[in-house]
Amino acid sequence: MSYDLSRFAINQITTPKWSMPEAIDGYARQGVHGIAVWRNFLEDYGVAQTRRELNAHDMWVPSLCTSEWLNISVTRNMSTAIDINRRLLDAAAEIGAGCLMMVVGGLPPDSKDIQGQRERVRDALLELLPHARHTGVKLGLEPLHPMYAGDRSLLNSLRVANDLCDELGEGAGVVADVYHSWWDPVFEQEIRRAGPARILSFHYCDWLVPTRNLRDRGMVGDGVIDIPRIKGWLDDIGYGGPFELEIFSELDWWTRPPEETVRVAIERCAPYVQTPGATGADK
Amino acid sequence: MSYDLSRFAINQITTPKWSMPEAIDGYARQGVHGIAVWRNFLEDYGVAQTRRELNAHDMWVPSLCTSEWLNISVTRNMSTAIDINRRLLDAAAEIGAGCLMMVVGGLPPDSKDIQGQRERVRDALLELLPHARHTGVKLGLEPLHPMYAGDRSLLNSLRVANDLCDELGEGAGVVADVYHSWWDPVFEQEIRRAGPARILSFHYCDWLVPTRNLRDRGMVGDGVIDIPRIKGWLDDIGYGGPFELEIFSELDWWTRPPEETVRVAIERCAPYVQTPGATGADK
Repeated sequence: MSYDLSRFAINQITTPKWSMPEAIDGYARQGVHGIAVWRNFLEDYGVAQTRRELNAHDMWVPSLCTSEWLNISVTRNMSTAIDINRRLLDAAAEIGAGCLMMVVGGLPPDSKDIQGQRERVRDALLELLPHARHTGVKLGLEPLHPMYAGDRSLLNSLRVANDLCDELGEGAGVVADVYHSWWDPVFEQEIRRAGPARILSFHYCDWLVPTRNLRDRGMVGDGVIDIPRIKGWLDDIGYGGPFELEIFSELDWWTRPPEETVRVAIERCAPYVQTPGATGADK
Repeated sequence: MSYDLSRFAINQITTPKWSMPEAIDGYARQGVHGIAVWRNFLEDYGVAQTRRELNAHDMWVPSLCTSEWLNISVTRNMSTAIDINRRLLDAAAEIGAGCLMMVVGGLPPDSKDIQGQRERVRDALLELLPHARHTGVKLGLEPLHPMYAGDRSLLNSLRVANDLCDELGEGAGVVADVYHSWWDPVFEQEIRRAGPARILSFHYCDWLVPTRNLRDRGMVGDGVIDIPRIKGWLDDIGYGGPFELEIFSELDWWTRPPEETVRVAIERCAPYVQTPGATGADK
């Protein structure tokens, strides 16, 4: 049984013990040539150096994670956040990333105005859009699970992400993640609505029962998410983009040797990253 | 400044150190005559005895918590779960509870079929409905936060609860909780759609930032939920039903002396349990 891993990427946050060159080498060594890059590792190693290392290992990059949040809890104000995001779009272009993952932030400090903040986020995305179009790097709108609405993102459903994309037009797309949306009664409907062109990347992991904290994602197959069914929806609409494994796991995977995580990731994900009917996909 | 507490109830799970008679006495002693009753405390103390104690303290009961889950993870099969729920409706009637809180359960063991299970839940509710009508106790459909979809409830939005109520008709209503729905972009819209007659009870607490685990609810005012705005929506539609404080808090409130929890609960909730323009509501 041989699987085609050409659409499979591992998100670097899955193996946080590894520096940038270690992750690139560690993934490539086991046959995974897709890597979703995180800013902190990119900054540590340098953009030019990272690009050389990626090229040397024949790597491709679905996305750069993540945008500066737009809730001015990290940055001084919204225009600072927008400027930082413009520079991140430049960095993403330099390493050939398909999109900048837009994690839009939660509520600003001392604010409870969720509606108002959602409007400010939309305005900020509109302001950022020309630079995204200029660089050719798309704004990847990723809805995050509602349990992150307070502190990480007020964009919590694929429906709202699709609505935003309708408004933004060229230069924006969605990134869907089974962890954030598996429970959503309209997940399938919104995947079909997005269609293959708008979905920039699709994230895998699993929802554990029990879930012990808010960073306790499971490896594909260890939880309750019906990955085969969801993969079927994607095949159905003719999605041909990346499949990315992304695991935040303070209590389990982050403590293991990264080589092991990569090995198990390939075993578990390979069946669900194939293109139906494609040559070399012997399943 | 004097507040009218006649619409205010405390959910017994907020003070789990107290037995049934201790909670009844402890709430009444501080002027709270509403208590949402939990099954385990009711079973420990006995239904008839509880009813006497409630009467002796002039208490009213918005709800009995919770239904047997419908995911056969606790009970042997669906018909057993339905039978248990019929008996719980009888018990609810005996203590004068307005509704039985329907927490519908997550996925059955070894199942990932979320759509199929949601259909089975709807069928089970339809089967339970005649007995609810017979007893006069309503089925209180409470959407739970999506982070509980795996193990506690596959009913995760007020929109779906309203859809279910449309289908069930007489004998069913919704119970909304700011904790479960505050993030939902259509929360206001679905409160308005439900209208005052369908909302059987309305739950308060707060969403903490950071949230440390899945049982880390905050006291009203300590989190990011805009309670005054939400209370405004309820006043707007003419909601005249109960306001209930319900806090699951392993790390904080459950560890404090219950008298203190009740005292703080009254201080924090009183402004948001008033009927606009009513006599005695001096705010």
